[in-house]
Amino acid sequence: MTQTEAAPVTAAPVDAETYAQIVQFYSHHMQLLDNAEAEEWADGFTEDGVFAQNVKPEPTRGRDTIAASMRRGVDRLKGRDVVRRHWLSMVVADRVDADSVRTKYYAVVFETPAGGKASVYLSTTGEDTLVREDGRWRIRHRLINHDGA
Amino acid sequence: MTQTEAAPVTAAPVDAETYAQIVQFYSHHMQLLDNAEAEEWADGFTEDGVFAQNVKPEPTRGRDTIAASMRRGVDRLKGRDVVRRHWLSMVVADRVDADSVRTKYYAVVFETPAGGKASVYLSTTGEDTLVREDGRWRIRHRLINHDGA
Amino acid sequence: MTQTEAAPVTAAPVDAETYAQIVQFYSHHMQLLDNAEAEEWADGFTEDGVFAQNVKPEPTRGRDTIAASMRRGVDRLKGRDVVRRHWLSMVVADRVDADSVRTKYYAVVFETPAGGKASVYLSTTGEDTLVREDGRWRIRHRLINHDGA
Repeated sequence: MTQTEAAPVTAAPVDAETYAQIVQFYSHHMQLLDNAEAEEWADGFTEDGVFAQNVKPEPTRGRDTIAASMRRGVDRLKGRDVVRRHWLSMVVADRVDADSVRTKYYAVVFETPAGGKASVYLSTTGEDTLVREDGRWRIRHRLINHDGA
Repeated sequence: MTQTEAAPVTAAPVDAETYAQIVQFYSHHMQLLDNAEAEEWADGFTEDGVFAQNVKPEPTRGRDTIAASMRRGVDRLKGRDVVRRHWLSMVVADRVDADSVRTKYYAVVFETPAGGKASVYLSTTGEDTLVREDGRWRIRHRLINHDGA
Repeated sequence: MTQTEAAPVTAAPVDAETYAQIVQFYSHHMQLLDNAEAEEWADGFTEDGVFAQNVKPEPTRGRDTIAASMRRGVDRLKGRDVVRRHWLSMVVADRVDADSVRTKYYAVVFETPAGGKASVYLSTTGEDTLVREDGRWRIRHRLINHDGA
């Protein structure tokens, strides 16, 4: 971020209605992912949405490409007979304008093998730009940073 | 669910006041459980409430039976000298009618033995039907699915 | 607490706006801590704030002392090349008066070593008295109880 873009994360906290919408959006979004509904999950991105991770050399660009990439991921996981649960919490949400919000949050993944014991698989932090579109929230840009990477 | 009952989980997200009430209800409810207050915890169910789990052959039916069953559970745990903390989060809450809400959520249990280290004990998903009764929320029907079972 | 101070935890649940403010305050507060911004984190306490833990013989008293103590803690951690993430959730918040709220919550710490796997480091419960000051929430008194201690 350049200096002119920089703003304190708590400069403009969203109101309670927006906060509840965003927390519910995230909860539903992660439930879709863990239920292997990759295409419905990817519908949570804008058509030109970007999904970047510090463990990948390049961001994934565009809803269709994000969907196809996640489809391969969840299909691979099905072959391993484990269940993953993505928890996203500790959300700070700041208003950018009427239809746009920036968030910072934590996310962890719990993993349980069939017949086995649950454990922590991964700890991450995230930063999204969310936009209001068609009466719902979508992710325009997501950056996930894996801890320890 | 039959087709006529089926509705998208995000069909009618609750407003922020209801969402805050439900999240606080769940938080208090789990704090009662982990504090071994089985009867106060069971008061979070309606008198005819049902508690079903995928790891049990039959649901537990009725607040008094739910209380008695949980009393045995927490008393057994006291003998083992461990602390459990039930975290319930990632809540999606949809309005059914003025006094009734359906939720889907994740729950994990952390366990710490006396003098020992914390770990994940269990990862689950849950689905509740909540009803507004006597000015507070209560669980009419709960289904908990243990991951890996 | 004396008997006259005692009140049921759900006696006066805060409204949704206050709840969203508090959850966002906690989220931001913990992000500051995990980002090693000890002084900015300590600004979340009142000038006469108190930070008590069941694993310490005495509470730490006063924002400056709390800041200095946490600065030593985060600097020690930097030398160990691990990342910690403090998750604070399951918040029950009760109004005391117009500018004061009491909370009870759970907090866990996840730890990830550089190049290694995430795990649960610690499970705790907490109780805060928060006050509204300069248009924001601050902690006047915090008690953290480590599980298993």
